[in-house]
Amino acid sequence: MGPGPSDVYPEVLAAMARPTIGHLDPAFVEFMDGLNERLKYAFQTKNTVTLPISAPGSAGMECCLVNLLEAGDKIVIAINGVFGMRMLENVRRCGAEPVTVEFEWGAPVDPNRVEDVLKKHPDAKALAFVHSETSTGVRSDAESLCQLAQKYGCLSIVDAVTTLGGIELQVDGWGIDAIYSGTQKCLSAPPGLSPVSFSEAAMAKIRSRSTPPQSWFLDMNLLTGYWGPGAKRAYHHTAPINSLYALDEALRILQDEGLDNAWARHAANHQKLREGLQAIGLEFYVAADYRLPQLNAVKVPDGVDEAAVRGFLLNEFNLEIGAGLGPLAGKIWRIGLMGASSTEKHVALCLEGMQAALA
Amino acid sequence: MGPGPSDVYPEVLAAMARPTIGHLDPAFVEFMDGLNERLKYAFQTKNTVTLPISAPGSAGMECCLVNLLEAGDKIVIAINGVFGMRMLENVRRCGAEPVTVEFEWGAPVDPNRVEDVLKKHPDAKALAFVHSETSTGVRSDAESLCQLAQKYGCLSIVDAVTTLGGIELQVDGWGIDAIYSGTQKCLSAPPGLSPVSFSEAAMAKIRSRSTPPQSWFLDMNLLTGYWGPGAKRAYHHTAPINSLYALDEALRILQDEGLDNAWARHAANHQKLREGLQAIGLEFYVAADYRLPQLNAVKVPDGVDEAAVRGFLLNEFNLEIGAGLGPLAGKIWRIGLMGASSTEKHVALCLEGMQAALA
Repeated sequence: MGPGPSDVYPEVLAAMARPTIGHLDPAFVEFMDGLNERLKYAFQTKNTVTLPISAPGSAGMECCLVNLLEAGDKIVIAINGVFGMRMLENVRRCGAEPVTVEFEWGAPVDPNRVEDVLKKHPDAKALAFVHSETSTGVRSDAESLCQLAQKYGCLSIVDAVTTLGGIELQVDGWGIDAIYSGTQKCLSAPPGLSPVSFSEAAMAKIRSRSTPPQSWFLDMNLLTGYWGPGAKRAYHHTAPINSLYALDEALRILQDEGLDNAWARHAANHQKLREGLQAIGLEFYVAADYRLPQLNAVKVPDGVDEAAVRGFLLNEFNLEIGAGLGPLAGKIWRIGLMGASSTEKHVALCLEGMQAALA
Repeated sequence: MGPGPSDVYPEVLAAMARPTIGHLDPAFVEFMDGLNERLKYAFQTKNTVTLPISAPGSAGMECCLVNLLEAGDKIVIAINGVFGMRMLENVRRCGAEPVTVEFEWGAPVDPNRVEDVLKKHPDAKALAFVHSETSTGVRSDAESLCQLAQKYGCLSIVDAVTTLGGIELQVDGWGIDAIYSGTQKCLSAPPGLSPVSFSEAAMAKIRSRSTPPQSWFLDMNLLTGYWGPGAKRAYHHTAPINSLYALDEALRILQDEGLDNAWARHAANHQKLREGLQAIGLEFYVAADYRLPQLNAVKVPDGVDEAAVRGFLLNEFNLEIGAGLGPLAGKIWRIGLMGASSTEKHVALCLEGMQAALA
């Protein structure tokens, strides 16, 4: 119950242990088509370029940025936590020109302040932000931010690592141009892959680059030769077959439950955790309107040794919760209720553990 | 029995399905120490920076090149197949200055010609080459090439994707500065990770760069903060827990067998395959002295439809073998005898299948 990896469904672990076959085997190619379709459902998109990057979420972030930016391109980055900072670090390494809009950690991105910056930088090519800031438990208003990107002629680049499968996400409905996620949060597959999706506008930009992206491994022009659409399944790198089996099974479970039901379950278990924690005197760090149900930032009460509490939970309850990062280190715990870890049983165990730890 | 992924040991698949735990869990941190030691054994190195990159072999290649090269650095690349070409592609994207030495596909890298080029380019910072060219089945003389690199003041960068666990490799003994491999060849773990190792000289160069490497995800200065040596286990990205379980189990199997025994087994099964194929009139593409026992390039006889043979083997014998690539497309088959797929049973099945296919 930390900030991820979440518990993995037994069916997903079993799928991961299926015999490895070749990445060009006709049976595997057929499997890829099904995985593509299930990913599109999870992202709520018709984007034909929707595929899993063969590396964790941080590589998905790098993939979106190195493909969409060329040296000198201006990009506005909204930063309200660790992952916005990481976007900035990646943008610098692309030789692109970042313009940052910073917000307090624990607060959401304010679209009004972003709009002010977009007005001042009409030459910006992209707007990047984190939908679900895993470092603080904050949800920002992705729909409004994507509308602003469109209004000011920018491509939108969205971090949805902790979003996917946990709270509402509408890639097509909100007009997201490039998005990356992870497998180890609300999808409850093991860590190691990063699902991404690119709109037609984003792919047009990538296809018309004057220089190839600086990463060969993450070059979307090459990756689409293997993954599609209409792909010749041309060898690029050896796909991580077993990890893809696991992701596909996790997406199948999500599809069986239904996205709406999964979002409602995450909301309901968050509600139960909130009531229980408040009953033992604990407070949330993030304002109610912006709280992520899947990642609960809880204030460490005065005088409590936060690391000792985490150690106690791990040793006595076999339960992992997360620490605060950066300016929030020592100030908050981060309690995940993601995917297979968003159940009444998890909530009850966590409440029992916290009560014992603080007694 | 293609060019990889090879068959995966059942124990490795079982390890991959173990419950996922956190990447900062003390139990996982202890596990990482054991994995580090087993990787050092496989590479035959005391390099403290020996770790698995969280992505396939192509990302390991990119990792070595983007960390060791800065814009404008000159590097000599020996090219005798697909993976030397891929090195060149990566080097170009680093803004470094490649000097290529090209060899016929199917021939090894000739150290004499490499030395001529190194003499002409005393400002070269690195020499890169592929030890086991998976595209052609050729072994080059890594020991001599690394000696040349040292003689001319270059760091050596070695592709050992298909080498590790299959034929002799001495990272310290041969003076290799940076090396990358894969999990899905002679280690017989599923694809998805790339073990790498860096000498102290390579790390000194990386630590003293004037600019950070262009990839954040592959930045060794950040990765060593998590993997060591003496690491604080600082979070960089979420490690692919289950894939690491699998790699560790595969390395444990290799250690139990012993490197010398594994190399001898690969050599013996190659010998049996060679005798059997020659008995049915098939010839090898590569000269005997440079043949990889784990990747057998076999000439397609005149008048035979090479794709039809592969289709027949897949459908009738449930057996995958590989096609030729680039200039060797249509001219060779590539038959892998790697790791768990290097057994007498595999040799017998392949011979039976080839005999039936060509009858």
